[in-house]
Amino acid sequence: MTLASSADDRRYVLTLGCPDTTGIVARIATFLAEVGGSIVEAAYHADQDTGWFFTRQAVRASSIPFGLDELREKFASVAADIGPQTEWTLSDTGKRKRVVLLVSKEGHCLHDILGRVAAGELDAEICAVIGNHRDLEPVAQRHGITFHYVSFPKDPAERGPAFEQVRKLVDAHDPHAVVLARFMQVLPEELCEHWAGRAINIHHSFLPSFIGARPYHQAFTRGVKLIGATCHYVTAELDAGPIIEQDVIRVSHSDSVSDMVRQGRDVEKLVLSRGLRWHLEDRVLVHDSKTVVFR
Amino acid sequence: MTLASSADDRRYVLTLGCPDTTGIVARIATFLAEVGGSIVEAAYHADQDTGWFFTRQAVRASSIPFGLDELREKFASVAADIGPQTEWTLSDTGKRKRVVLLVSKEGHCLHDILGRVAAGELDAEICAVIGNHRDLEPVAQRHGITFHYVSFPKDPAERGPAFEQVRKLVDAHDPHAVVLARFMQVLPEELCEHWAGRAINIHHSFLPSFIGARPYHQAFTRGVKLIGATCHYVTAELDAGPIIEQDVIRVSHSDSVSDMVRQGRDVEKLVLSRGLRWHLEDRVLVHDSKTVVFR
Amino acid sequence: MTLASSADDRRYVLTLGCPDTTGIVARIATFLAEVGGSIVEAAYHADQDTGWFFTRQAVRASSIPFGLDELREKFASVAADIGPQTEWTLSDTGKRKRVVLLVSKEGHCLHDILGRVAAGELDAEICAVIGNHRDLEPVAQRHGITFHYVSFPKDPAERGPAFEQVRKLVDAHDPHAVVLARFMQVLPEELCEHWAGRAINIHHSFLPSFIGARPYHQAFTRGVKLIGATCHYVTAELDAGPIIEQDVIRVSHSDSVSDMVRQGRDVEKLVLSRGLRWHLEDRVLVHDSKTVVFR
Amino acid sequence: MTLASSADDRRYVLTLGCPDTTGIVARIATFLAEVGGSIVEAAYHADQDTGWFFTRQAVRASSIPFGLDELREKFASVAADIGPQTEWTLSDTGKRKRVVLLVSKEGHCLHDILGRVAAGELDAEICAVIGNHRDLEPVAQRHGITFHYVSFPKDPAERGPAFEQVRKLVDAHDPHAVVLARFMQVLPEELCEHWAGRAINIHHSFLPSFIGARPYHQAFTRGVKLIGATCHYVTAELDAGPIIEQDVIRVSHSDSVSDMVRQGRDVEKLVLSRGLRWHLEDRVLVHDSKTVVFR
Repeated sequence: MTLASSADDRRYVLTLGCPDTTGIVARIATFLAEVGGSIVEAAYHADQDTGWFFTRQAVRASSIPFGLDELREKFASVAADIGPQTEWTLSDTGKRKRVVLLVSKEGHCLHDILGRVAAGELDAEICAVIGNHRDLEPVAQRHGITFHYVSFPKDPAERGPAFEQVRKLVDAHDPHAVVLARFMQVLPEELCEHWAGRAINIHHSFLPSFIGARPYHQAFTRGVKLIGATCHYVTAELDAGPIIEQDVIRVSHSDSVSDMVRQGRDVEKLVLSRGLRWHLEDRVLVHDSKTVVFR
Repeated sequence: MTLASSADDRRYVLTLGCPDTTGIVARIATFLAEVGGSIVEAAYHADQDTGWFFTRQAVRASSIPFGLDELREKFASVAADIGPQTEWTLSDTGKRKRVVLLVSKEGHCLHDILGRVAAGELDAEICAVIGNHRDLEPVAQRHGITFHYVSFPKDPAERGPAFEQVRKLVDAHDPHAVVLARFMQVLPEELCEHWAGRAINIHHSFLPSFIGARPYHQAFTRGVKLIGATCHYVTAELDAGPIIEQDVIRVSHSDSVSDMVRQGRDVEKLVLSRGLRWHLEDRVLVHDSKTVVFR
Repeated sequence: MTLASSADDRRYVLTLGCPDTTGIVARIATFLAEVGGSIVEAAYHADQDTGWFFTRQAVRASSIPFGLDELREKFASVAADIGPQTEWTLSDTGKRKRVVLLVSKEGHCLHDILGRVAAGELDAEICAVIGNHRDLEPVAQRHGITFHYVSFPKDPAERGPAFEQVRKLVDAHDPHAVVLARFMQVLPEELCEHWAGRAINIHHSFLPSFIGARPYHQAFTRGVKLIGATCHYVTAELDAGPIIEQDVIRVSHSDSVSDMVRQGRDVEKLVLSRGLRWHLEDRVLVHDSKTVVFR
Repeated sequence: MTLASSADDRRYVLTLGCPDTTGIVARIATFLAEVGGSIVEAAYHADQDTGWFFTRQAVRASSIPFGLDELREKFASVAADIGPQTEWTLSDTGKRKRVVLLVSKEGHCLHDILGRVAAGELDAEICAVIGNHRDLEPVAQRHGITFHYVSFPKDPAERGPAFEQVRKLVDAHDPHAVVLARFMQVLPEELCEHWAGRAINIHHSFLPSFIGARPYHQAFTRGVKLIGATCHYVTAELDAGPIIEQDVIRVSHSDSVSDMVRQGRDVEKLVLSRGLRWHLEDRVLVHDSKTVVFR
């Protein structure tokens, strides 16, 4: 699960989902063996509930005698053979994935992601940071990353053009991930669909508890003994998208709302950075409203 | 926090709640010093949100030159002096607290509580077990504890007499705690009020997520990455009472509903046993809809 | 991961370890596909450090048109083909695994395991309980399980015959697991070797911290902020065998040694029950001094 | 536990330790009541093992009709009255505490601390960063903090002058905390004594496991299932000082050493930032080789 720090660490990563039947693993494994593929990581899941099959395989790139395009072409016929509902991807860890970050005023998630990229800990190219406030512009600049300010009108009904502007700025990079790093704006339905499977949000509660605004206030009022954060794909229904990762931290009666906000930030950062890493490493497969995460 | 295993381990435990003002700690501490009380544990909390003050103090019983009744009498005037809204209790760890358990068919919480009492780990007297099914009668009998079977009609509208019978069976013991150890019946409002602050429920989810029936099925369907359990005081509103303790365990896409049920049981047992212990040790102070837990 | 609760839940479980080379997965998967095997769970691990390959596969028994013996026979030639160092097992979840428990005076782990078996939560046959004290005899009897008392002399140098007696009592059942459920006796080297890969111990610390006697006292003295427990295979070197599972719980300055002992018991029970379950479900593969655990 | 964000959030914080006797709480509380002190937080611990008493009290500064110096003077006679062994401090949350950071090449802890200070989340003045390599100079500069490079000879026997230089640079600020934020150098005994109770180290293992160099390699080799980090006061004996905070994270057979290093960093950052916060908020009282942490 380490980054591609040397030529031999380069991997081709296959993900595949399809209705479960006998022989799928054999077909894939036989194909990979025939092309000489040295499998470094392989994970499978057959969902008894939905009858769906999922796999992720990482193959040492140097073990394949031809390039990714040819591998894709050859595998396409295997996939077709498996069945018409088969969904698959093949990616190259040697090519850095592109990420655009949407932010507002709170900087802890932005700081954390940029810090991890700078430290070589998260293998991604941060193409741009887009904010509906200028507060975090210096943070992006300090890391040499373009910051776009998009003004959002107070009236939600008038925000269409602002979202249209965000869409263009994002799409210019054709990113693998659009991260709502405490963006605090509800995406319009058409953007949710347009970025389906790529838009990742961090919600500052342990969903489905405390959906919507001011979850720490809700948690304080309810008197819960643990607070949490949830990283999920964005869908049209608010805070209801497929969950990638969650975690919690213990609180007590002595913690005020601002104590919860402070401690919660640490959970948000960790949960978002894990979820984003897994997404970029093609470890997250979505089916219906749930995820399979091959950690 | 150990049990009273020798004479010198016997404690008088004071709990007190009142509107916060200057000098309360001084008044209590001065009183305890004047009667020679050796304070073994002391905890305070001044709630900035509600302006309420809470304290719990454990005094070595042998350090007080008279009995609990006299201590109570003397302290009453201190409490009156502090103010008319002052609520306080004084209890003796040398007197075992009485507990009645309400159960249905699932035995893991019953097993766990009886096992802890048998091992001398939970200092309580289990007066009776009451079940709306006979399944767990042998478990109670094996521990030499009376089991009462109360037949509950299928139609919820006709369960009044059954609850009346439960009430009489419980009240005969005047228990310090009525534990709904996976009882699976919603208490009628009048019973919630009658046992207010004494009826403790274990709910098999991380509340406020998944209120009501079949929370593990709800959790499976939502695709959460952690499941939990909540120990709370029973109030008229379903699963909305003051929370005493919560905990969670990690699950993944590979866990079926029955895997979650199995793993969740371990969390339920732990959370209920902790919550019950703290309640019996007078560590839980309730104010409005929240708890202060002096662990 | 559920138990075999219906005919269709019966599985044949294959585990295999060998030096990693290209094509192993293909060979196994092709074989399983050829015999019609419907794979329910499959996990792989290629260890970059040792160059060793590990897999565990669970196949729906009803999908195979012949019995386990024939499956074993057929697979033997696949395994031979993979290479001479290949180690593999094939087991049937329809056949309950046999377990012998070794105990001393502390009963919490014994209670926990017997309770899980009684509740149908742990799919195992507890053949016998062997104790070097009689304290826990009633616990075994209550569950209808034979208890053998073996007297251990005070002088460690004279315990040879006692261990010989334990060995005979254990071996009479040819168990899949010999569980040292807080047995508090160091097994002689020859027994460690004789039961290699089958003898499972629960140590009441987070190894490698606090090896040997009275780990909670050691933890208290050192002032650690978390205490833990470790489930591991027994080897000749004390508390140094391959670790199957570990967990921890938070403690504070207010916890005495006996508080730690009490809270630690909950961790011990959980860690041992998880480790034992995984062992019995053939989820633990040992290589050198470490384990691969396919959870 | 929030920061002093408004005038009324300013606190005077008293810590006190002494041999336990009856009446200490009364004396302190009576004194505070007499000067009109409004107690916001109060915590007590009577250690049954050592017979030592500890307390920490936070008083609303605005409730005291005179300044901190006068409060100190008045309290001195209370402390003297309690006994000659009494150790106490009185500090003002309105005065930012000074911190000097010692670093080497790894920047994650430095990034984390500077980020928290910048975000107003950690109320401290970072006076200087001192490094035995120049790698992290830009990080300090970006935050406008002076960076001092001190060259350390390869031969440990010749490092005396380098440590002397570090000592002077540190002492120039008379800091409340000297943080070894992955400094990777063992402090000479005289510096340990000179900074006793102020020098805080983060060790990248769950002590006392894996003392010394390369703890993640040690953890990988041992095959532990959890890795951790420990924040402790520095003493002359390596990695044996009083522990302030510890935490762990789960790892598995699929994690390489570099995976552990990456995941461990998140634990190190959290544990160090919690430990440093508690130290600066006077929540940590040291007695013998252990800490009392009033969280």
